[in-house]
Amino acid sequence: MIDSQEIAVTRELRLSRAARGMGSSALREVMELASRPGVLSFAVGLPAGELFPREALAEDTARALLADPASLQYTLPLAELKQQIVGLMAGRGVRCRPEQVFLTTGATQAVDLLAHLLLDPGGEVLLEETVYDGIRLAVCRFAPRILTVPSSADRGIDVDAVAAVLAGGARPAFLYLIPESHNPLGVSLPPESRRRLVELARRYGVPLLEDDTYGLLGEGSQPALRSLDEDWVLYVGSFSKILAPALRTGWAVVPEALIPRLSMLKHAADVDTSALGHRAVAAFLAAGRLSDHLETLRREYRRRRTAMLAALAAHMPPGVRWNRPSSGFYVWIELPRSIDATALLRAAVETEQVAFAPGEAFAASDAAGIRHCLRLSFGNCPPERIEEGIRRLGRVISHRVPAA
Amino acid sequence: MIDSQEIAVTRELRLSRAARGMGSSALREVMELASRPGVLSFAVGLPAGELFPREALAEDTARALLADPASLQYTLPLAELKQQIVGLMAGRGVRCRPEQVFLTTGATQAVDLLAHLLLDPGGEVLLEETVYDGIRLAVCRFAPRILTVPSSADRGIDVDAVAAVLAGGARPAFLYLIPESHNPLGVSLPPESRRRLVELARRYGVPLLEDDTYGLLGEGSQPALRSLDEDWVLYVGSFSKILAPALRTGWAVVPEALIPRLSMLKHAADVDTSALGHRAVAAFLAAGRLSDHLETLRREYRRRRTAMLAALAAHMPPGVRWNRPSSGFYVWIELPRSIDATALLRAAVETEQVAFAPGEAFAASDAAGIRHCLRLSFGNCPPERIEEGIRRLGRVISHRVPAA
Repeated sequence: MIDSQEIAVTRELRLSRAARGMGSSALREVMELASRPGVLSFAVGLPAGELFPREALAEDTARALLADPASLQYTLPLAELKQQIVGLMAGRGVRCRPEQVFLTTGATQAVDLLAHLLLDPGGEVLLEETVYDGIRLAVCRFAPRILTVPSSADRGIDVDAVAAVLAGGARPAFLYLIPESHNPLGVSLPPESRRRLVELARRYGVPLLEDDTYGLLGEGSQPALRSLDEDWVLYVGSFSKILAPALRTGWAVVPEALIPRLSMLKHAADVDTSALGHRAVAAFLAAGRLSDHLETLRREYRRRRTAMLAALAAHMPPGVRWNRPSSGFYVWIELPRSIDATALLRAAVETEQVAFAPGEAFAASDAAGIRHCLRLSFGNCPPERIEEGIRRLGRVISHRVPAA
Repeated sequence: MIDSQEIAVTRELRLSRAARGMGSSALREVMELASRPGVLSFAVGLPAGELFPREALAEDTARALLADPASLQYTLPLAELKQQIVGLMAGRGVRCRPEQVFLTTGATQAVDLLAHLLLDPGGEVLLEETVYDGIRLAVCRFAPRILTVPSSADRGIDVDAVAAVLAGGARPAFLYLIPESHNPLGVSLPPESRRRLVELARRYGVPLLEDDTYGLLGEGSQPALRSLDEDWVLYVGSFSKILAPALRTGWAVVPEALIPRLSMLKHAADVDTSALGHRAVAAFLAAGRLSDHLETLRREYRRRRTAMLAALAAHMPPGVRWNRPSSGFYVWIELPRSIDATALLRAAVETEQVAFAPGEAFAASDAAGIRHCLRLSFGNCPPERIEEGIRRLGRVISHRVPAA
């Protein structure tokens, strides 16, 4: 029998160490500040909402649902979409077979499942010091030891540093990279760095986790890392930036032997089945609409990038530096070291209604080296708004730049 | 410099212990055997595909995409759908607020995120000895110590055994339950068991993870466990069985304080944003279509259940026992102990083209006690096919029943 007096004792739900240790994502907080009504925001890496092919997707999705009686049932992952992805991968210089393609709930899930596949709790991972905050969130549940290497906004990851870490004996579960149109740095890796990274991966048996979310948007994108090695490069792609995020459709290209284990891991995460978003993407691709759509996106993102770089040149005070990416959604800004970008963000929102993502949101471990940096995201901003936003930002910064 | 001779050394990708330890899901293998063309299958818990409201979903989804410019962008979880779920929960006897509702990629993700929230690697969980195989898959990545308690096909979980485990000092991260229309047992828990379980949860500070996937399909369903306690019952619901699996839309109802952590965990898993499936469900509900649809489903599943129980009475040889569920998709069969259901499955598929799920697929740890049992799933089978399938199954079993 239960002693009712004991029931009165207050108890608290015990959370896992991983849940307690997650803290909060700096970027999520920035998102809230930046999403205040009226704020002109360069803070979040959104794709251009007005370019989503809503009519075509609505029509193609409805037609796919009506045409296939199995379209809403639990079924095996969509073979048609895997085949279509094989075609897309050719555009990234990658030859692969449908048996090597694994469909996911967005690229984030692909990264998550690959982390579960490779990383033990308390294990080691190798990240750039300045890194996409999503990968930090993905790995932090494993409470790993995070090894870092520097990267620059002009040359990307420091390959000599990678070589030194591995030569020193470290064998991390993987090295995560965005070789094309880096988030947050905007940079694309030089060919020589790519070759050397793949050689290091083979030599030391450390896989490269290649996040190619922006690869298909580039006009002169280099072939994906995966084109250089089939065994040690695990590739992740996404329809979020080339079609729309709400479709939640991404994929991995990996050695075929890994597919059954990814399938088990996905089954545990959200069931390895064809989702409505997968059907919508497949229907859009089957209608032959992607190629023209990609041309539209590339043209428009080039316009926006050009507008951003021109506005920076016109409105930034002396002492502010930035890189000149040739693809992607991002420009990386270095302010004078005396300026803290997170403090600046608050002032920028309050005085000029303009927002950006402060550098510390992208620190893999220690933010000290990038507190004076910030990321500008121009994907969801038409050129005239970019000009206006950078004018405002220039004013906020000018008030703080130390006199020469 | 890299020494090219060393590159030739063959290396193998190192997988995490969790990935190596997953083995394979017996149910997935059964699915392959049972999905051979021409096989009449009671093996997999599929909902009735021909009852999916495909036209209405196609129309409502297309309209929702066209009406809302933000429908395909990264946005906060859909407030409209949370509010609609509050209404649905009232039908399960649960009062809640939208701030306690968390939207997921199907119920499986809700269970997965709650497992990440509560369970440490190597921690303890409490499961029934005969349990939904999805929960075993969800927890096995944590390599937990699995404590088990018996349950019966007539009365469900043995609450005295739960009390004894907890009185003995065990403090598992949670106890997972399907109180209504248990999978695989088909049984619904008696009210007294429900009250006692909630008292035990409070007394010992061990949360109950309530999977209510089938609750809204029952005609005389009891109120959800969650109606008895807001702090210690973490509720999981799903649209997979009441609308369609490919929508990948489920939800959790939990104490509001847990929502930010679930949001972080979901962000790491597949981004906490509105997915196309969420929009489709919300549009269907907003059109006021769910209530009639649920009536249709309840009527049809009752017909199928009645047909299944009548066919069993007509075609099972003496020595075979089964329970008589009043809801859900499943009937649990006990064969004479000398018959191994997994071996029987192979024979059933080969000689009579009929399939079921063998008991061992649902063993939390040791399958010895249920090797002679099997689960019949009738959700996706019209009554005349049920009659035919059970006739075939009766023949296969009759050949093996020992003479009295």
